[in-house]
Amino acid sequence: MKHLLTTSELSISEIEQILSEARGFKAGESWLPHNQTFVANLFFEPSTRTKCSFEVAERKLGLEVIPFEVATSSVLKGETLYDTIRTLESVGVNAVVIRHNIDNYFDELVGKTNIPILNAGDGCGHHPTQSLLDLMTIQEEFETFQGIKVAIIGDIRHSRVARSNADALVRLGAEVVFSGPQEWFDESMRQNGHYENIDTAIETSDVVMLLRIQHERHSDSDKHTAEEYHRQYGLTIDREKKMKPNSIIMHPAPVNRDVEIDGRLVECERSRIFKQMENGVYVRMAVLKRALDQYQGGVNNVNDYQKRLLAY
Amino acid sequence: MKHLLTTSELSISEIEQILSEARGFKAGESWLPHNQTFVANLFFEPSTRTKCSFEVAERKLGLEVIPFEVATSSVLKGETLYDTIRTLESVGVNAVVIRHNIDNYFDELVGKTNIPILNAGDGCGHHPTQSLLDLMTIQEEFETFQGIKVAIIGDIRHSRVARSNADALVRLGAEVVFSGPQEWFDESMRQNGHYENIDTAIETSDVVMLLRIQHERHSDSDKHTAEEYHRQYGLTIDREKKMKPNSIIMHPAPVNRDVEIDGRLVECERSRIFKQMENGVYVRMAVLKRALDQYQGGVNNVNDYQKRLLAY
Amino acid sequence: MKHLLTTSELSISEIEQILSEARGFKAGESWLPHNQTFVANLFFEPSTRTKCSFEVAERKLGLEVIPFEVATSSVLKGETLYDTIRTLESVGVNAVVIRHNIDNYFDELVGKTNIPILNAGDGCGHHPTQSLLDLMTIQEEFETFQGIKVAIIGDIRHSRVARSNADALVRLGAEVVFSGPQEWFDESMRQNGHYENIDTAIETSDVVMLLRIQHERHSDSDKHTAEEYHRQYGLTIDREKKMKPNSIIMHPAPVNRDVEIDGRLVECERSRIFKQMENGVYVRMAVLKRALDQYQGGVNNVNDYQKRLLAY
Repeated sequence: MKHLLTTSELSISEIEQILSEARGFKAGESWLPHNQTFVANLFFEPSTRTKCSFEVAERKLGLEVIPFEVATSSVLKGETLYDTIRTLESVGVNAVVIRHNIDNYFDELVGKTNIPILNAGDGCGHHPTQSLLDLMTIQEEFETFQGIKVAIIGDIRHSRVARSNADALVRLGAEVVFSGPQEWFDESMRQNGHYENIDTAIETSDVVMLLRIQHERHSDSDKHTAEEYHRQYGLTIDREKKMKPNSIIMHPAPVNRDVEIDGRLVECERSRIFKQMENGVYVRMAVLKRALDQYQGGVNNVNDYQKRLLAY
Repeated sequence: MKHLLTTSELSISEIEQILSEARGFKAGESWLPHNQTFVANLFFEPSTRTKCSFEVAERKLGLEVIPFEVATSSVLKGETLYDTIRTLESVGVNAVVIRHNIDNYFDELVGKTNIPILNAGDGCGHHPTQSLLDLMTIQEEFETFQGIKVAIIGDIRHSRVARSNADALVRLGAEVVFSGPQEWFDESMRQNGHYENIDTAIETSDVVMLLRIQHERHSDSDKHTAEEYHRQYGLTIDREKKMKPNSIIMHPAPVNRDVEIDGRLVECERSRIFKQMENGVYVRMAVLKRALDQYQGGVNNVNDYQKRLLAY
Repeated sequence: MKHLLTTSELSISEIEQILSEARGFKAGESWLPHNQTFVANLFFEPSTRTKCSFEVAERKLGLEVIPFEVATSSVLKGETLYDTIRTLESVGVNAVVIRHNIDNYFDELVGKTNIPILNAGDGCGHHPTQSLLDLMTIQEEFETFQGIKVAIIGDIRHSRVARSNADALVRLGAEVVFSGPQEWFDESMRQNGHYENIDTAIETSDVVMLLRIQHERHSDSDKHTAEEYHRQYGLTIDREKKMKPNSIIMHPAPVNRDVEIDGRLVECERSRIFKQMENGVYVRMAVLKRALDQYQGGVNNVNDYQKRLLAY
């Protein structure tokens, strides 16, 4: 069963295989399952990017997407996640994409359900497709991870992205440093990189990866005002000017404009923010193919099919 | 106009025809309408199973499903159900599937709208596709209904399933008994079967059909605690041991684990709970075909189409 | 970029071109884009008619509709409309349909996004597809706009429809008058037509176009009771009897039965209310084709495709 749960469980060669498939899809390759294949997207937390990105990826693979709205589901009657997934499996759903607010929600599912689970984010834990699209974007830019310095800046403690990325980047040969409010630095992350002063981090890194302040996960005492945060830890116009030549800016979005980053920099020349979103579709096509190819079967480069069916 | 409103209005031969079609779909037969055909699913109450099941059935028949979210519809502006259905009809929707909290909501529609209505549950009234999938599951197990004893246990008064099933089962030749809290027994149901003590019912029936406690429909004074209910009327581990050989357990789900049934029995060997869900898709394909075939037209066993379109 | 933002920005010849395409679609013509094409419908206000109508139109053109539910989107995390649209564009969405409660919401988007925007209603401002379907319905009835008198009656001040329609009708050669509560008449509309007494308006017009009372946009002091409004300004049974021969009744719906119009007249012989909805689908097909044809490309009258793909 080819679940996709965390970046950590993926070997280097599996990551490289997924990125290679994603590049292929971006270059125009295609894949379609042999049979009508159903997938359901279960988003227990708000999302535009990840949900729409999966949805587009699914349609590009010719999958049938079964709508699942938490607010109108039996989850409201107290149904457990396990029973919901078993239900979807019983009615013929072949794979599920899940975002959930509980860390490691998938632990209660794995080994007990018979369809692949693609984790679209769990609590403060993991967000493997975000990591993979970040990796794809860095690889596209620098071709290698060896010797690339990546600064992950901001709300590290509450970030699914920070954990997933730091781990994978280090294994792939990159150097990772963390910055932002020091009290948000999590000692458990020290194995992947040390804390660095904000100005040093921005001035010496090839990739400045900003994280979203997750207001909804902070207690009041823990909060910085937007202006104060921007001045102390944000990517200001001044700090951007001191970045290395050819270094790039990344952000998983949604962006809090003028907090993590000056609004005027969101679409500046160094910014890869919207390119990350574009790459997300191809990465998701790759992990969906990986999950379905094994037990559903499919065909690559179905250009004739597409000519007949879509491009006419 | 081939509506599907209640099980009672279906003749024995109509039921048998639907079950036969459903078995055919399960065996791999197919049907597609001649023309692009639109269907809308209107769920005014939460549902996972029924909604997803209809959705999968619709896609398997190649129908176009138009999303309808009550929470973002003009129903919020006070639009009547009749005007909503007439609107959908006007924009080209060819059939509607409706779940509504009002008993017999369809009375104000029938004869005035021009598209078939498939009832996916009304108030405490009817739920014909649930009945049909229950019948299909029993028939698959025992091949006949003659002489089969079915115990319907639990929240009989608030159950759409109890009414629909008891009526159909009796007409098909089965024996029905009811059990659970005696004060929940509805005298109007006596025509289809008598009330039986919980232990007798479980020990002597071929089918133990448990109903969901509908907490949301009970007043406080009416409530049993979960533990008390389970001990007095639930399918405990002990009671299951005393069931007849080859007898089966059914439940329309969602299950309240450890209330109606011990959580460990939900997927035991006797349980057909997830098989019921699987059969639901085929039953819904059958009633959708029945509703659309007449005025839209369609073709059976379109294997070539499917080979080309879906299976490549 | 062929946005569709307001009726006013459309030239007479553009309007005629759209109506001609819409008539073609109604007569059975078809169009499909060359490549798999994605569209998202963003409805920030409740809607049944407009949303379902766009959805059906999109499916008839073979478009892939990406679900976007405001209530489960990052809009809840404070994402701006601009960032949402740029996100959708980045993941591959080719056009967006937007209904929003802010007047001229599109001003902050036009010139900055790279995909066409189809306005499905903004605040109290514009609703161009509603105007176009009204025009199509009038044209179908009278063949010309020259010399046709149209009375627009009711909640003129809060009506997107009133503004859009009055402007286009006058340019096309029709005569427009306004009626209803005089305090709701907006002086800015005088350029398109004068205020007329309710009985005169109804008795002398070829088209009696009633508007919906938008309770949700009125302050308390501003309110009329339903009965009072109906008696003073509604289309009563008595007033309908005095209408000109061959004159017709229109209403954008949802109808407040027995307020703007006696419930018994909603489907009377003069009423074109449900025909308007039907025409809405064809008008939306026309504007979607217009938006996509230029940069996506497509083919007309793909009957073979349809025979193979849809009609088998």
